[in-house]
Amino acid sequence: MVSSLRLGVAGLGTVGASLVRLVDRHGAELSARSGRTVEIVAVSARDRSRDRGVDVSRFAWFDDPIALAQSADIDVFVELIGGAEGAANAAVRAALEAGKHVVTANKALLAHHGAELAALAESRGVSLNFEAAAAGGIPIIKVLRESLAGNAVTRIYGILNGTCNYILTRMEREGLSFDACLADAQRLGYAEADPTFDVDGFDTAHKLSILTAIAFGTEIDAGAIYVEGIRSITTADIEAADELGYRIKLLGVATRSESGIEQRVHPTMLPKSSPIARVDGVTNAVAVEADFVGRLVLAGPGAGGDATASSVVSDIADIARGDVVGTFGRPASAMRPYQRATIQSHAGGYYLRLAVFDRPGALAAITTRMAEQGISLESIVQRRRAPKADAPDHPQPLEPQPVILITYDTTEAQVKAALERISTDGHIAEHPQMIRIEQLA
Amino acid sequence: MVSSLRLGVAGLGTVGASLVRLVDRHGAELSARSGRTVEIVAVSARDRSRDRGVDVSRFAWFDDPIALAQSADIDVFVELIGGAEGAANAAVRAALEAGKHVVTANKALLAHHGAELAALAESRGVSLNFEAAAAGGIPIIKVLRESLAGNAVTRIYGILNGTCNYILTRMEREGLSFDACLADAQRLGYAEADPTFDVDGFDTAHKLSILTAIAFGTEIDAGAIYVEGIRSITTADIEAADELGYRIKLLGVATRSESGIEQRVHPTMLPKSSPIARVDGVTNAVAVEADFVGRLVLAGPGAGGDATASSVVSDIADIARGDVVGTFGRPASAMRPYQRATIQSHAGGYYLRLAVFDRPGALAAITTRMAEQGISLESIVQRRRAPKADAPDHPQPLEPQPVILITYDTTEAQVKAALERISTDGHIAEHPQMIRIEQLA
Repeated sequence: MVSSLRLGVAGLGTVGASLVRLVDRHGAELSARSGRTVEIVAVSARDRSRDRGVDVSRFAWFDDPIALAQSADIDVFVELIGGAEGAANAAVRAALEAGKHVVTANKALLAHHGAELAALAESRGVSLNFEAAAAGGIPIIKVLRESLAGNAVTRIYGILNGTCNYILTRMEREGLSFDACLADAQRLGYAEADPTFDVDGFDTAHKLSILTAIAFGTEIDAGAIYVEGIRSITTADIEAADELGYRIKLLGVATRSESGIEQRVHPTMLPKSSPIARVDGVTNAVAVEADFVGRLVLAGPGAGGDATASSVVSDIADIARGDVVGTFGRPASAMRPYQRATIQSHAGGYYLRLAVFDRPGALAAITTRMAEQGISLESIVQRRRAPKADAPDHPQPLEPQPVILITYDTTEAQVKAALERISTDGHIAEHPQMIRIEQLA
Repeated sequence: MVSSLRLGVAGLGTVGASLVRLVDRHGAELSARSGRTVEIVAVSARDRSRDRGVDVSRFAWFDDPIALAQSADIDVFVELIGGAEGAANAAVRAALEAGKHVVTANKALLAHHGAELAALAESRGVSLNFEAAAAGGIPIIKVLRESLAGNAVTRIYGILNGTCNYILTRMEREGLSFDACLADAQRLGYAEADPTFDVDGFDTAHKLSILTAIAFGTEIDAGAIYVEGIRSITTADIEAADELGYRIKLLGVATRSESGIEQRVHPTMLPKSSPIARVDGVTNAVAVEADFVGRLVLAGPGAGGDATASSVVSDIADIARGDVVGTFGRPASAMRPYQRATIQSHAGGYYLRLAVFDRPGALAAITTRMAEQGISLESIVQRRRAPKADAPDHPQPLEPQPVILITYDTTEAQVKAALERISTDGHIAEHPQMIRIEQLA
């Protein structure tokens, strides 16, 4: 008879409480599947007396997560504290050093310290599992680490932040501004009081860095990601995208190019026929393109206590079966150095929205500047704004008019150079809007 | 140093040739990931001299797959022969009895003999892996067996046959008949000369039976599936579906109901907002609904040599790492008996297309028959057919007119009873068309 697998859970927030409920409901089945009894034996959190909707009094209590991590009474340390530094970091290291398996949902910790922690886990012969860290309930880590073992990945891209996707979906469906949708998301609990981490793309960047490391076998480098959030997106952009056959999503994209691995997080124009263009609301989705499998798409809940607990338990079940996988799908020593492809060398199509002063020759000057940079245009849309009620029938010559350009494939450097010259020429007001287009493979 | 993992491959068709190419291209990386050298050492096929586009002369040759299965020189028997009986069946049994791990892409074999083979594998302590058997390159087996270990599945449904999805997509996009699209699919190699296995739903049923066994932990029972193919679907149905906000897909559906597990394969009306309604062409997709994760959707290539080889290698990599998972996600002894819910007790909405004789009282009689069975109607669409060029301005009273009914949730038994009475009343010509609606959870 194999001894039971004893779990110590640090952090009893939403995910921790869901994990306790899940093990209560499915523990027997989980044990039958794994061939080994799986049980929570100890927990740690800040406030022992808080009502969490589940009974945790039956578990040994630790005020100090590090003491729990080192306890001789546990086999697996489940870290649900969060944060790249502080208690989570110290406790995970302590657990690995003590030869405990670690399961974590902590994307920030992995993005910043993943390489070191992987080497530490490997040196102790234990697992460091983190299915919940990249896309909540979507099993993308297992698919990349295991299912795609026989593939070279060429591109991975996804909607990895439910807050941003909720906001963009509302803006599109209801024609509301970013600010109005953000306020609603905050009211509904889909966005934090300080939404920076989500709406400015950092959460997506953390998740992307983890996916990149596994997909391409390169050392994790969260600092090498080009990051741009969704605050600049207007309803004008969303409407123009719709008319041109696109939808706007905040994507994390990693792709192999000649100069290295390109990692970027930014609002993206996706053709409506793209397999993830219609993923709406808080749902997340990841598409992987690889040489043998072609294209796989996974969609599901990117957050939430129950969905996250489902992924945490998947990691625990792997440990119960005795399956030790390299943290990023391969031995830490086999991870290649990350070679960054700069955003300047990014090649692709671009959507540009310019506020052009309506005077003779302006459009000619703009298109000439594009041509000088070797940029070909797929479409130009110029529409006069409807005159305001108290304005004359025709807008004043100097009132800027929106002009939308879609380029064929070019590079970031060329687009930036063209826009700089167009700005200098004085034909446009405001900062031009530029959204990268992510085409189907 | 761990000894290398030696593969014997039986069957060198499209998938076998892709597998050889994959191991040539990614063998070193695969070995690095698995911590163990993975190599093909022996092969078996009918014709040794056939040009397969890959060099197989470097491998030991076996004319007899059973001899290969029993060879002391292999650790894993990879069965790519196909068919529920005959050589594939005998060789897989021989391999398991000889204590070899088995990897197979053979859905028919598993659908018909899965339970026995699982018990045999378990008794020998070896793996029986079959990622490629249910949805080609989509890693649905791993997701069900491992990622969802902490969930109770409530429903699983999917587009599991690329031939049918290709035909339905062409019918919809081009307004062509089933026969015309089938002929095209045959010309393009998407359908066999005898298309029965695909278009009549049997291929989907085999795959569904495998998914059901894992999802619900019940003994596999391919004979208990209600199966209906797509031959009866007309462009009139597809157009009506579109107008009513649906798309028609051939689905395999398994769901837990009060009376047991319901398994059915039939053309299905999916709301356009369903996550798999827009999966077109030969692409496959599976949606799983479960208590903790909510809903996951996986989409990708359901067939093709390279995509199938990708899944075969995923199974091999698991064996190389030493991960032994219960064949259907749990020990064979823990599989519950399959309790069949009959199609008569199926509850849901229905689309009905009737050819109604255009005479006073016909519609009243029909709706009365529906009401007698307690069936409420969500919508009724009656449109006169455009008169033929050589016909009078109004159709003859007895020329039947199409009437489309959408019911609210009811049962198969009630719908069948109502249709029988409507037929007996003599108000309709032809056999009524009936398509089940699969609503979102």
